[in-house]
Amino acid sequence: MPVPLRIGIAGLGTVGAEVVRQLLANKDMFTARAGRRLDVVALSARDPSKDRGFDAPAASFTTNPLELVAQADIVVELMGGADGTPLALAHKTLGAGKPFVTANKAMLAKHWHDLFAHEAPLYFEASVAGGIPVIKVLREGLAGNRVSAISGILNGTCNYILSTMEDTGRALEDVLAEAQQKGYAEADPTADVGGHDAAAKLVILAKLAFDPQVTAADMKVEGIQGVTAADVARAKAGGQVIRLVASATAKGAYVVKPEYLAGDHPLAAIRGVTNAVTIEGEPVGTSTLIGPGAGGGPTASAVLADLVDAARKS
Amino acid sequence: MPVPLRIGIAGLGTVGAEVVRQLLANKDMFTARAGRRLDVVALSARDPSKDRGFDAPAASFTTNPLELVAQADIVVELMGGADGTPLALAHKTLGAGKPFVTANKAMLAKHWHDLFAHEAPLYFEASVAGGIPVIKVLREGLAGNRVSAISGILNGTCNYILSTMEDTGRALEDVLAEAQQKGYAEADPTADVGGHDAAAKLVILAKLAFDPQVTAADMKVEGIQGVTAADVARAKAGGQVIRLVASATAKGAYVVKPEYLAGDHPLAAIRGVTNAVTIEGEPVGTSTLIGPGAGGGPTASAVLADLVDAARKS
Repeated sequence: MPVPLRIGIAGLGTVGAEVVRQLLANKDMFTARAGRRLDVVALSARDPSKDRGFDAPAASFTTNPLELVAQADIVVELMGGADGTPLALAHKTLGAGKPFVTANKAMLAKHWHDLFAHEAPLYFEASVAGGIPVIKVLREGLAGNRVSAISGILNGTCNYILSTMEDTGRALEDVLAEAQQKGYAEADPTADVGGHDAAAKLVILAKLAFDPQVTAADMKVEGIQGVTAADVARAKAGGQVIRLVASATAKGAYVVKPEYLAGDHPLAAIRGVTNAVTIEGEPVGTSTLIGPGAGGGPTASAVLADLVDAARKS
Repeated sequence: MPVPLRIGIAGLGTVGAEVVRQLLANKDMFTARAGRRLDVVALSARDPSKDRGFDAPAASFTTNPLELVAQADIVVELMGGADGTPLALAHKTLGAGKPFVTANKAMLAKHWHDLFAHEAPLYFEASVAGGIPVIKVLREGLAGNRVSAISGILNGTCNYILSTMEDTGRALEDVLAEAQQKGYAEADPTADVGGHDAAAKLVILAKLAFDPQVTAADMKVEGIQGVTAADVARAKAGGQVIRLVASATAKGAYVVKPEYLAGDHPLAAIRGVTNAVTIEGEPVGTSTLIGPGAGGGPTASAVLADLVDAARKS
């Protein structure tokens, strides 16, 4: 039997706690799929004593994420934030020659070059459209293609707001306030509503598909702040819908903006917090992936897939 | 520089010829993605002299597929047929410890156990829904999930027939005859129209997701032969559509049959030769993949992805 993969997890919010619960609840399944045990050996969070719905007596607990590196073979970062401790943790882990798993699109979009300068592998399926394995599909499933264009709905919060405005005729501010209450939108919704979260995800997809040098500065970004109930009503009367579409082409056009789509456009059917990504390539033609974009379960699914991948490869 | 991967390809129909064209036209791209050169060194076809739109002077040509094994590091089988030469070629290649790539769903569904008894890897992304990397998504992208159900439109010919009946009000026989003329349907359409092609693909998905012991005998299969223009009209009048749906559940229900779907059902929007697969799992929720199911380009895309994978791993 090969040695277990010792996992350290930094950040036990919705996603981190779900990852731990799944690993503990499905030990045999993960051992079978990864070819070795996936052992949670170390955890870090601001408040170690909080009840998160799991019992991990075999794992040590710390309030200092940087301590995970010494204890684990692989570190999962689910804290968020483009700089500071998550970035230090990434460099410390990768610098120690250990694989690093992250859902942190903001950090990746900003520090890609430095992070990929390490030799150790960096896994980031969870950084874009959690429930859709688009990173793996782009890098492996469609590895035989020249991709010409990628477009999609990459921010579930904006899509929830727009499709709810469509259904109810209400104003953006109303629907946003409700989304915040339901936990679909952050207390500070700027990154989502302003299009910057979608842009960070588009940077990652564009780097993979088109140009590793692309940065957030190359994106033309317009958020949904200016979309009014009257705009939505006008679109609806014309058989259209408004969606925040992120699109990138091989020719170097990178745009995030609200678009009027015909009712039978594939992205028009995407409602609520769902994400969708359409990839055009040669020789495949057009392939579309649809799934939940965020939330504990879908994002945990992506992190777990990265862990299985890493266990198989390292 | 690592050694090139020497590729042998058996069968130069639409898919095989497209694979060779892509490998020859994008040598640098494939070298970069695979980490080594992908060299076409040996080809087999019934008629070596036919013009297939490529020039492969570095490759030897044979009419005996079994000769490829000695010349190549990996063999791609695109001949079709569940038994006979393709099966002999699979066993000879894998028995020699060399990876084998196939699009042959009928052979896989029938001889899975024996083929996977070899230690050498068997790649088969192209066997189900060509342009949709569903095999990789199931085995890797969603490897962190307990899958509870899979359903989809796995036969493009039937879907073309049903959606064309819907659009035109014509009878199945008429539309089928036209599909045969356009090359969307085989001269002998029994496997497609009878649901057996979709069932062979469902066997493969069910083996991966639920139970390696599942065989074609476990499938309940009803084709679209009995669907009349009146059925389609009745569905349409009620806001529904008819689709040949293949579905499998973790509880062991494996069914291929024409189903009446509500107009807003995700699979109702799938038209023409497109395929779609919906995967339900815990913790991901529901993920859907849509893309071209067959044809030279999409199937070649899947074969090429398998070759890149094999080159990276072997």
